[in-house]
Amino acid sequence: MYDLIIVGSGPAGLSAAVYGKRAGLKLLVIEAKPMSGGQILDTYEVDNYLGLHGMNGFDMGMKFKEHADMTGAEFKTAVVTQMEVEGETKIVKTADGACYEAKTVILAAGAKHAVLGVPGEDEYKGKGVSYCATCDGAFFKGRDVAVVGGGDVAVEDAIYLSRMCRKVYLIHRRDRLRAAKGLQDKLMQCENVEVCWNRVVDCIYGSDLVEGVTLRRTSKQTEEQSGAELTAAGQSGAELTAAEQSMENLAVEGVFIAVGMHPNTEAFRKVVDCSEAGYVIAGEDCKTSVPGIFAAGDIRTKQVRQIITAASDGACAVASIERYLNGNA
Amino acid sequence: MYDLIIVGSGPAGLSAAVYGKRAGLKLLVIEAKPMSGGQILDTYEVDNYLGLHGMNGFDMGMKFKEHADMTGAEFKTAVVTQMEVEGETKIVKTADGACYEAKTVILAAGAKHAVLGVPGEDEYKGKGVSYCATCDGAFFKGRDVAVVGGGDVAVEDAIYLSRMCRKVYLIHRRDRLRAAKGLQDKLMQCENVEVCWNRVVDCIYGSDLVEGVTLRRTSKQTEEQSGAELTAAGQSGAELTAAEQSMENLAVEGVFIAVGMHPNTEAFRKVVDCSEAGYVIAGEDCKTSVPGIFAAGDIRTKQVRQIITAASDGACAVASIERYLNGNA
Repeated sequence: MYDLIIVGSGPAGLSAAVYGKRAGLKLLVIEAKPMSGGQILDTYEVDNYLGLHGMNGFDMGMKFKEHADMTGAEFKTAVVTQMEVEGETKIVKTADGACYEAKTVILAAGAKHAVLGVPGEDEYKGKGVSYCATCDGAFFKGRDVAVVGGGDVAVEDAIYLSRMCRKVYLIHRRDRLRAAKGLQDKLMQCENVEVCWNRVVDCIYGSDLVEGVTLRRTSKQTEEQSGAELTAAGQSGAELTAAEQSMENLAVEGVFIAVGMHPNTEAFRKVVDCSEAGYVIAGEDCKTSVPGIFAAGDIRTKQVRQIITAASDGACAVASIERYLNGNA
Repeated sequence: MYDLIIVGSGPAGLSAAVYGKRAGLKLLVIEAKPMSGGQILDTYEVDNYLGLHGMNGFDMGMKFKEHADMTGAEFKTAVVTQMEVEGETKIVKTADGACYEAKTVILAAGAKHAVLGVPGEDEYKGKGVSYCATCDGAFFKGRDVAVVGGGDVAVEDAIYLSRMCRKVYLIHRRDRLRAAKGLQDKLMQCENVEVCWNRVVDCIYGSDLVEGVTLRRTSKQTEEQSGAELTAAGQSGAELTAAEQSMENLAVEGVFIAVGMHPNTEAFRKVVDCSEAGYVIAGEDCKTSVPGIFAAGDIRTKQVRQIITAASDGACAVASIERYLNGNA
């Protein structure tokens, strides 16, 4: 029987491990992959975690894990498939058939990248389609690539790729980016980045490897333009031309998809209350709807999902656990 | 006119500076002392900030400041004495007569620990005297320590320390604790905790490091006993013996002082709503009662006051500010 089981080994889980071990709790960290760090591992460079500026995401993940290791935290690699509550005991089950019991659990399984869901996306995964510029960018040195999205991560990916690729197209469905102003400024300084405004990916095509993406226009203005063209085209007797004109092929060898996230809460949704978007409902104190179960990091309902806020959650969750174990919840 | 003025340069203020500069905000950090870092600077060693284990507090402060400097943040050393709001403009006045205007302000002036004010306390700070069991407890593994106080924090600290220390003395000046009943019950279950009732610390002694505390009795009952003894002692002709008898030395290597905190909110209490204890009332989004004024770190109402939670607040406050400036608050 553990005092605490931490599900997940990203910044939230590792910070919870550090605080938990330092608090003398008997704890186990269950991580889905044999490498700790969570999404950081997919990040080229992290520059906003106070005290560790300009650090490669992989190195940061290693540094975080090393810190948790130094406290003597116990790690197990397994995929958590189920969680049950029996009285005050929490039972965590993993895909390998194992079963762990604890007085408390911290859900820190994070979130994962959203997919486009277009033809070719799944087929070419690892053959040109990537969700991680940091991991795969180097394979596209000197090539032309596309990034899909308009948030911080998409813009960061475009900036990253511009340093090694010949040309980077940033494909965004709207006429403005959501990314932070500073990032946008940085992007505009990259001479080999071209933003394809008001475009979505219709499909990803190729032979053995990706050879390009087909884009479709989205904006009202563009549609009106298309309409005008449609008329002109119609006059020349070719009705299909409009659709054809609103489509265009972009020859690229890599497609980096950065269009959002899904919380990893499938295994927990029957146990704790979740939001419509699937995040575990929990505030700053990380308390979920079930006493003794806590949620920390990207997995919980919150406004700011950053490494520093996840690591902070790890500390807050352990503080709440101490109160819970002390009968002072 | 600045976009943002940050009052304070501890982890919350410096993290806000990093996030603010990266968000392209024109900002100024006003720090009371010519050295950034806040309370960290007084910390011998910090071991719970994920990724920077076993780091000297001073070095950590320098590292944080360096990070903020690399973003190009502007710093000014001055004591903020007053804050006013004129329409949407926030006016910050300093002791040197200067006056700064900004669209938004982050109050990140922190808090300070209440002190006992006894000989040895200041001398042994970071050499056995600590104001944070969560931060420093792990350094006293297997040792004997004392906790001073009788509220929730003191009792939580004693329980926390009981898991790693050999023996924990809880020194309390009264014959009952103020802490929550549940906590007291838990405390009584800790076999290696001994409460020293009706005692105050008279002094903290040692050589290079703390070696013990001298306790003085406080209770009426004890005083009456002392009185009786005094008489008896008086009869035997040694008047000093009473005082001597009411004193006792306790050999400990750590002294954890948990007698309260004072938020540095004197200059802001007329402007933003504060709690009874003087903290600026603000949640995870750092919003205060005044639109455009935010509170980050130890200065705001929160349950966990740690370096990592303060740095997290810096990020959250800037996110709230971006929303506020975008008219999306």
